[in-house]
Amino acid sequence: MSWELGLLLGVLWVVIGVLAVLVLLHRRGHADTIWYLLGAVLGPLMVPIAYERGRSRSVVLEREDAPGTWGDGAVQLRVLVGVDGSPESDQAVRDAARLLGTAGARLVLATVLDVDSAEREDAAERGQARALLARVAEQIPATADGQIETRVLAGSPAQALLELAADEHVDLIAVGRRGRGLSRALIGSAAQQISASSRIPVLLATPADRKTG
Amino acid sequence: MSWELGLLLGVLWVVIGVLAVLVLLHRRGHADTIWYLLGAVLGPLMVPIAYERGRSRSVVLEREDAPGTWGDGAVQLRVLVGVDGSPESDQAVRDAARLLGTAGARLVLATVLDVDSAEREDAAERGQARALLARVAEQIPATADGQIETRVLAGSPAQALLELAADEHVDLIAVGRRGRGLSRALIGSAAQQISASSRIPVLLATPADRKTG
Repeated sequence: MSWELGLLLGVLWVVIGVLAVLVLLHRRGHADTIWYLLGAVLGPLMVPIAYERGRSRSVVLEREDAPGTWGDGAVQLRVLVGVDGSPESDQAVRDAARLLGTAGARLVLATVLDVDSAEREDAAERGQARALLARVAEQIPATADGQIETRVLAGSPAQALLELAADEHVDLIAVGRRGRGLSRALIGSAAQQISASSRIPVLLATPADRKTG
Repeated sequence: MSWELGLLLGVLWVVIGVLAVLVLLHRRGHADTIWYLLGAVLGPLMVPIAYERGRSRSVVLEREDAPGTWGDGAVQLRVLVGVDGSPESDQAVRDAARLLGTAGARLVLATVLDVDSAEREDAAERGQARALLARVAEQIPATADGQIETRVLAGSPAQALLELAADEHVDLIAVGRRGRGLSRALIGSAAQQISASSRIPVLLATPADRKTG
């Protein structure tokens, strides 16, 4: 075997492994660089591994349910709000509370960590997610008489929110919307995916205008 | 003047007039073919006419307000629903009633005729619009305790709905959403424009799946 052929095969090996990670894993919310290193080393062997991994569903890492007050017999709406700490998602929480709070809706605030955090069990990371949800919950005006629940998920943001919505029979997903004046898409990418794929109604919040993108 | 030059000028004359109608009028909701004929005859003279016409705002042709019951002092939500007779917009009406009817929201059902109908005063056309709104209003389940109002507008659909929303201090615009399986965009064009431009929250309804596009 000539050295040129060896080099070619080596490059192919690395490229196939990295491509497998890029195509099968990255868009599913696997953000760790370690996956790319693994792909480069394992080459074509990475394809079935990445395939199996990429098929995995999103995971609910933590949940805090509201004290149940289902006794009044009324059908209570469940509204899922995607929270990522951006001004857009803060606005989505406020809009959902204002528009549906008077109907006594159950607001489920959910934030999504990358899919590998399910295995990392990183206490600091989970603590940050919990703190974010607590901060956002505080913004809900006292006039809203709904209940608030929280979820920490792991997965790709849009997929994780859509799966949670299906599992928990949510009636509406509320997501943030970017204002004009940004060079990026008007609707965030997760919001756009949810708008396109959701089988239930989607609430696009008031656009949050930002001075800087 | 050679005949070639004459022909060229004639073609230019017609092209400029038709282009003026296409660029300045068509996207504003002027659907009548008569405008193109006018453009072809008037040529460049059509530019200022089309410009003036194209700047015109949308018009409320007819309105039917709910008997006022504002006495309870509660802040009542106003929800504007765009109605065009499609399964998608029917679904938007049902979703708005289901999600916000329990909050006692005021549902404003609005359908949009092309902008020139403001001058045509076509009784049959207006009657059809009224009948459409009445048919749609009937679909609202009796459990929804909100009030229903109707509007017949003239203009380009997205622009007319957005202007009405601003004028009437609406809290939420509900629009239909296409299901998967269509070759066209997932969200209808008016819904897409509204999602991109609305300064208030937008409710994208449950997708209406259709067998045929």
